[in-house]
Amino acid sequence: MPKIVNHEKRREQIAESMWRIILEKGMEGATVRGVAEEAGLSVGALRYYFKDQDELFVYAMRLVNERVTGRVMDIAARPLPPREKVIAVLLEIVPMDDERRAETDVWFSFLAHLKHRKDLDGIPEHAVYEAIQKLFGLLEAEGALRPGLDRELEAERLYSIIDGLALHAFLEPERLDPSMVRRVVRSAVEAITL
Amino acid sequence: MPKIVNHEKRREQIAESMWRIILEKGMEGATVRGVAEEAGLSVGALRYYFKDQDELFVYAMRLVNERVTGRVMDIAARPLPPREKVIAVLLEIVPMDDERRAETDVWFSFLAHLKHRKDLDGIPEHAVYEAIQKLFGLLEAEGALRPGLDRELEAERLYSIIDGLALHAFLEPERLDPSMVRRVVRSAVEAITL
Repeated sequence: MPKIVNHEKRREQIAESMWRIILEKGMEGATVRGVAEEAGLSVGALRYYFKDQDELFVYAMRLVNERVTGRVMDIAARPLPPREKVIAVLLEIVPMDDERRAETDVWFSFLAHLKHRKDLDGIPEHAVYEAIQKLFGLLEAEGALRPGLDRELEAERLYSIIDGLALHAFLEPERLDPSMVRRVVRSAVEAITL
Repeated sequence: MPKIVNHEKRREQIAESMWRIILEKGMEGATVRGVAEEAGLSVGALRYYFKDQDELFVYAMRLVNERVTGRVMDIAARPLPPREKVIAVLLEIVPMDDERRAETDVWFSFLAHLKHRKDLDGIPEHAVYEAIQKLFGLLEAEGALRPGLDRELEAERLYSIIDGLALHAFLEPERLDPSMVRRVVRSAVEAITL
């Protein structure tokens, strides 16, 4: 009997090879040839799964996004008071361990590369901004949002705090310790909730 | 008489050529060969000014830092009330026009590249963090800091707001308009000042 290869599983493995290369060498190393080598495939075999580097790039970026979203959805489903739920979700976005720091590294590498590529379709955009809008919706639905807030301003502020912390946790892990990240996130959420 | 070439001026022009290439093609294009071509020099002539790509990289990064610092010092010297001075300085760091967006683009490209280069000396580190510590010092010296603040927490929050806004102003210029940037910065400074 022929071995059944799970096509989607293989695509994920190839994307993970791309992440590993980005972590080691940055986007410069993430060519089709480099990824094929890391994945233990021939260039021809890789092209069976992804027709070119762009298709692989978009897929690999969407996969990071899906995994983070999946973890966030798990937290959102937990029976927590609204404020604690929002804090837990935000702390899932700011990287505080090596695995999440690696995701952030890959994500920022993707974003930096994207600035010079206006022609790609299918890229997940503003994922954190949308997540924050949803969290405001959740707090409002639960009656936990402080009344009289300028919601647009508060959403923009929280968005900048989260991405600023993510950037610093990624670039300066030796300076910014996880307990300070937790304090900043908690105080930012307490300022907008009852 | 032989033409006198200003050595330092030529080094600056070469660094600016590196910036232009990064803006167009990202760090991948910023090789010695690529920079020499953009600057209209032979590779040999470029090596007279910078012995290798690393030396050029460090110089180009320090030059961005120096220019931003210079502008910030100009504002700090203006006769403004402390709160307005701090707001003006912070708005100089968040890019709201094409020139400053270009600097931010180059700066983030440098930072992303640096993550994979632990061996470089002479890189300006945490420039924005240090600027924010100095602004807190200024507010305190002027008696304009709100009493009873957790200064460490507030500095970390303001730092994340500023770098988060810088990242978003750079990545999402079509979404985040300058008036919202001003409102977020003003409200963040008002929260910590008298």
